[in-house]
Amino acid sequence: MAAKMIYGEEVARGILGAIERDISELREKDVFPGLATILVDNDEPSKIGSSMIFLKKIETLFKHMNVYFESHLRPKDVSEYELIGLIHALNDDPKITGILLIYPVPDHLDFTNTGYQINKLKDVDGLNWLNNGSFVSAKDIEEMQKRNIVIPCAALGILQILNHMGITLQGENVTIVGRGWCARPIITISIASDATVTICSSKTRNLKDETQRADILFSVTGKPKLITGDMVKEGAVVIDVGINRSPEGKIVGDVDFDSVKEKASYITPVPGGIGPMTVTMLLKNLIELTKKSNQIHIDSILYS
Amino acid sequence: MAAKMIYGEEVARGILGAIERDISELREKDVFPGLATILVDNDEPSKIGSSMIFLKKIETLFKHMNVYFESHLRPKDVSEYELIGLIHALNDDPKITGILLIYPVPDHLDFTNTGYQINKLKDVDGLNWLNNGSFVSAKDIEEMQKRNIVIPCAALGILQILNHMGITLQGENVTIVGRGWCARPIITISIASDATVTICSSKTRNLKDETQRADILFSVTGKPKLITGDMVKEGAVVIDVGINRSPEGKIVGDVDFDSVKEKASYITPVPGGIGPMTVTMLLKNLIELTKKSNQIHIDSILYS
Repeated sequence: MAAKMIYGEEVARGILGAIERDISELREKDVFPGLATILVDNDEPSKIGSSMIFLKKIETLFKHMNVYFESHLRPKDVSEYELIGLIHALNDDPKITGILLIYPVPDHLDFTNTGYQINKLKDVDGLNWLNNGSFVSAKDIEEMQKRNIVIPCAALGILQILNHMGITLQGENVTIVGRGWCARPIITISIASDATVTICSSKTRNLKDETQRADILFSVTGKPKLITGDMVKEGAVVIDVGINRSPEGKIVGDVDFDSVKEKASYITPVPGGIGPMTVTMLLKNLIELTKKSNQIHIDSILYS
Repeated sequence: MAAKMIYGEEVARGILGAIERDISELREKDVFPGLATILVDNDEPSKIGSSMIFLKKIETLFKHMNVYFESHLRPKDVSEYELIGLIHALNDDPKITGILLIYPVPDHLDFTNTGYQINKLKDVDGLNWLNNGSFVSAKDIEEMQKRNIVIPCAALGILQILNHMGITLQGENVTIVGRGWCARPIITISIASDATVTICSSKTRNLKDETQRADILFSVTGKPKLITGDMVKEGAVVIDVGINRSPEGKIVGDVDFDSVKEKASYITPVPGGIGPMTVTMLLKNLIELTKKSNQIHIDSILYS
């Protein structure tokens, strides 16, 4: 059996129309969304490589949608103090309605403490602890939606893709390989969906035992070809959240595509799988936050 | 083989001495910790039963340690508005340095939204989203300690007990039965400890498969006798975080003690296991927050 491919771009296309209408409506009210990204240079070529790919995708989509976008690059020895200063300046900048600090940052910087400084109303990826705390505290996905919680972009994209494919997490054995910053929101949505969730780290004794149990397998490690065909159950859904640059310069995920596609029922390729959805969800979160802060602005004029 | 018992009271005794010294030091500076608890009545006798047990334990310890304590009981039809009003009054009350909203609350109240109103410097159980977000964002336990993060009481108690018994979570198969509010901090510390973590919900298809894999098994469901001997691996560590009142009025956990103790290597009984540690950690978190707000108070006088 060869797996069916899940192309994020296809799913994204169905959502972009609605986003476009939202943007037009905002423009009619003279409200313009604007995104600022912050990327810190990194010694490790694989890490900076995947961040650059992400940034390039953002630039392409925002140009295509005609939404304001500015990119701030900082050298690898930038201090936390400088970075927080930049975030505060962007918090105060009226043409910026969303700020994204791109993960990872070099080791001397505290990613969560820095991300916490992003104004919660400009926090497109849920880094501010108020948004993050609200997200992880929600009982289930329904509560997240009801409360208009910022769901981090990759996790939101995954929810939309699964929904589009008619795949539900409830009661399924979900294995998540990786427990770092990028994996956490995927852990949260899986628990909130009442899946049976297994989280593996680099200290997991027998990774194959854990991946073979999965009905739905997420890999979020940044290690090319970590997941091979023998590690995957026949008919499993395999979602590859890794973006890596191979030594030959090719963009690859965590999954050894050729061997896994023979076992899985569905598989997301890299590139073209989760990535395009993540970028689209970034735009979606930006638009939602722009609407929300504009509403707060109007309320404060009306009721002051 | 019969399991060794883990008595929380024994572990707590070793910690209470240090807490006592901290309290004396604060008193010498005319600083007095004070805790306010809020308990909302509940139709379900099992739920209100376990809350009343918890409250009674708090009262006993705080009287014994001579620390100020006040208890606010509210009827089951209290509105969220009234409850938030009470929290705001306690936030402003100088004799109260810590506030605990006891879980669960009746369904018409939003627990996390209400708990969020607790001032982050009085938030002894990490309900405020700033504290919660900071807790779940931490890379590992070391980072939690370095940052002086409020670790919710039950999870902090579990960390101390495991540490005391020389049991480490890293690389172990940890199964957590339950994914509700009380289970979440235990999930967080297990992931942060680099365990291989499996989380089961009421929708888990074959619970026994999941519990039998566990080197360390946590049950956090509030369902008496859910975990029976046949569900436990020979030599597993079994931590019972349930507190229930049986129909006969006895206090019992989630674990069928008699059958499980024949299989486990370590087991925490109910009562006398995790409970006493949770109450002691409540006092510890209260003292830490009292120290911190007093320091902020002094700083604001010195540097203003």
